[in-house]
Amino acid sequence: MSFKTYNQIAGQKVQRIEAISDGVFAIALTLLVLDIKVPIGETVRSERELFDSFCQLTPRFLSYFLSFMTLGIFWTGHTAQFSYIEKSDRNLNWISLFFLLFVSVIPFTTAFLSEHIHFRLAIGVYWLNIFLLGFMLYVHWRYAARKGFLSIPAEETGSVDKAVRRRIVIAQLLYLGGALLCFVSNYLSIFVIIAVQLNYALAIFSGRTRRESGRADKL
Amino acid sequence: MSFKTYNQIAGQKVQRIEAISDGVFAIALTLLVLDIKVPIGETVRSERELFDSFCQLTPRFLSYFLSFMTLGIFWTGHTAQFSYIEKSDRNLNWISLFFLLFVSVIPFTTAFLSEHIHFRLAIGVYWLNIFLLGFMLYVHWRYAARKGFLSIPAEETGSVDKAVRRRIVIAQLLYLGGALLCFVSNYLSIFVIIAVQLNYALAIFSGRTRRESGRADKL
Amino acid sequence: MSFKTYNQIAGQKVQRIEAISDGVFAIALTLLVLDIKVPIGETVRSERELFDSFCQLTPRFLSYFLSFMTLGIFWTGHTAQFSYIEKSDRNLNWISLFFLLFVSVIPFTTAFLSEHIHFRLAIGVYWLNIFLLGFMLYVHWRYAARKGFLSIPAEETGSVDKAVRRRIVIAQLLYLGGALLCFVSNYLSIFVIIAVQLNYALAIFSGRTRRESGRADKL
Amino acid sequence: MSFKTYNQIAGQKVQRIEAISDGVFAIALTLLVLDIKVPIGETVRSERELFDSFCQLTPRFLSYFLSFMTLGIFWTGHTAQFSYIEKSDRNLNWISLFFLLFVSVIPFTTAFLSEHIHFRLAIGVYWLNIFLLGFMLYVHWRYAARKGFLSIPAEETGSVDKAVRRRIVIAQLLYLGGALLCFVSNYLSIFVIIAVQLNYALAIFSGRTRRESGRADKL
Repeated sequence: MSFKTYNQIAGQKVQRIEAISDGVFAIALTLLVLDIKVPIGETVRSERELFDSFCQLTPRFLSYFLSFMTLGIFWTGHTAQFSYIEKSDRNLNWISLFFLLFVSVIPFTTAFLSEHIHFRLAIGVYWLNIFLLGFMLYVHWRYAARKGFLSIPAEETGSVDKAVRRRIVIAQLLYLGGALLCFVSNYLSIFVIIAVQLNYALAIFSGRTRRESGRADKL
Repeated sequence: MSFKTYNQIAGQKVQRIEAISDGVFAIALTLLVLDIKVPIGETVRSERELFDSFCQLTPRFLSYFLSFMTLGIFWTGHTAQFSYIEKSDRNLNWISLFFLLFVSVIPFTTAFLSEHIHFRLAIGVYWLNIFLLGFMLYVHWRYAARKGFLSIPAEETGSVDKAVRRRIVIAQLLYLGGALLCFVSNYLSIFVIIAVQLNYALAIFSGRTRRESGRADKL
Repeated sequence: MSFKTYNQIAGQKVQRIEAISDGVFAIALTLLVLDIKVPIGETVRSERELFDSFCQLTPRFLSYFLSFMTLGIFWTGHTAQFSYIEKSDRNLNWISLFFLLFVSVIPFTTAFLSEHIHFRLAIGVYWLNIFLLGFMLYVHWRYAARKGFLSIPAEETGSVDKAVRRRIVIAQLLYLGGALLCFVSNYLSIFVIIAVQLNYALAIFSGRTRRESGRADKL
Repeated sequence: MSFKTYNQIAGQKVQRIEAISDGVFAIALTLLVLDIKVPIGETVRSERELFDSFCQLTPRFLSYFLSFMTLGIFWTGHTAQFSYIEKSDRNLNWISLFFLLFVSVIPFTTAFLSEHIHFRLAIGVYWLNIFLLGFMLYVHWRYAARKGFLSIPAEETGSVDKAVRRRIVIAQLLYLGGALLCFVSNYLSIFVIIAVQLNYALAIFSGRTRRESGRADKL
């Protein structure tokens, strides 16, 4: 009869981590909608006034959209890792949970940014959140790789590993660069950060090299 | 050793997209309930007064019901597509995410409509939301079909493809027609839009042709 | 090439219905917790005062508990059906969605009951909600049975079918009886309804016949 | 034809219990974020003032973090059990539901503790919640073991069983010890409880014996 510690038993079920992640992401994705309040009927007397009060909601919509993109990017990253992770242990489990901790504060830091867009602190806090998400994703991947939890066809191991890591590092460097621009101008800084996010989210709409999409077809 | 880009790795797991979709839909489905506030005990002194204050909640219930139906229709559409989609890539993943973006604002646009039912702008915003949902669903299906991600028995490919596309296009034309009626009368416009939705949601209770249900039995 | 209508394509994926149901139930289960507000620190100056303000939350806790039990009972019923349902169609899909519609208003009707416990209307509304849940569950089962969507070992078909139907009918009769008692006394009525629910929820703690648990072991 | 009672039919689907658990946990994990309100823009005129109002949110962040850890610990425990549970019945189903009942009040009891940290009652309520979570987990495991619902390789049965039970009992004794310290000092008591939780949550960052991790590799 072998001896077992609780830490060897806990956190082995990959599907559960995926399920709770999807739950937390789904809630975080929709939380900020609660912040977009419908203008009250009595204060509005014409199409024009309704249009004006609708337009006043623009910052809320932008802030919602920004939060949605950030969460979409990191959810995609998390999912991408789990398409290779086939085992887990207690530690990987907790790395994921701490990742989710930073996921669930995204609605707050985004709202904080949109409310105080002219203060450097707001940019710093928002950047810190994105950094911590990227950091946990990186630790998550490295830990899974080191423990041999990944299931990648032998001839692709190196290339997948590199792609995942390079993706996180480059994105984080771009975010850091964007954040540092706040010492030049806040709006420039936010513009660059959002541009980076748009790039990662909307790659979908941008033209991609023929070579790449040709390969994707063969997948 | 093959070369891999991150975009080739991300978004491959169909089940995850389904899971986060169900999460976002589940939350959107229940969000508007939070808007139905229980009348406070102290202000009510008789069955009659309670009944009156209960009746005053009717617009909220209707708005909740409308939002529920819309979400139900598009959830069913999304699910129907995924009963044929067996692969995914990063792009399909993001098309789904943008679809979910428009899902999660349905509670807002519905509340906006019910609060400002006598203004054309409210109808326009509500229609735009429904249009964007239908548009993303259409793009989603076309992209999956073009990339060969669908798994349909060969002899049904054409008919399934046609059914899915025709369904979206016809529904959207009806919604557009309904929305345009707001230049005649707002109430007529809303009445037609809701009638179209009821038709799609409640087909269940309506008598259907024998031929069709006969076939459904054989499925 | 066969001809397909959209209605034949939609709603076939049982797992999706289960997933969105679990999502809606999970949210409904936790919504009422938001109603239990922590007493504010400044108004409390001693252990005694804190204890008093904690006790004032009792109706909220009871209301939460009641809502939780009701949802637990119907979730168990829904799950029980799906342990036999292996196929679905568009109609079953929508029956489930309407079931979920009534699930998501349980937090409202429960809060309505606990706020207006001395009015018959509150009991009526609460009972109506429970009745509609039971009614949809019954329709759901009958429809699935009639369409041949159930997968039950041949020798158990009749007994499972009877058990599911009898369970719903008997419970609903007890609820109806309880609700009608409001013409005698509101508190008696609520007491009986809660007793019925406790009976179904807490069967777990009650002694059960040996014969039954003996059989359960053999399952 | 065998005779069936509803209680034999209900609650057999393990995946559904896991799904609703992940849903409730995901919501509970994110609920407290709603308590962290962004300071309003107009009241803030300098980086300094923004920093100050950000710092005033510290108790909310701590309370959120505490709640997150508690939920993470018990979610991991629940998941660990279900990596061995392969069958279920109506009773196990309801034990899980009552476990979830106590899960969903964690945001309340944590907020109650952080708002009234200087009162013994707050510590008592918080401890009671943790105790009930541990108690339900213990009952859950014992019931599943007694009914033969566990699927553990024969040579590990005893060791897994012992590990799960010992883990719960030791943790609960430590929590009880911590809670009793409130008769010495409230802050000491909370410090010890949080230290115990940190120990269970952050074992990840602590050095672990080589022997153990060596074994884990072989899993």
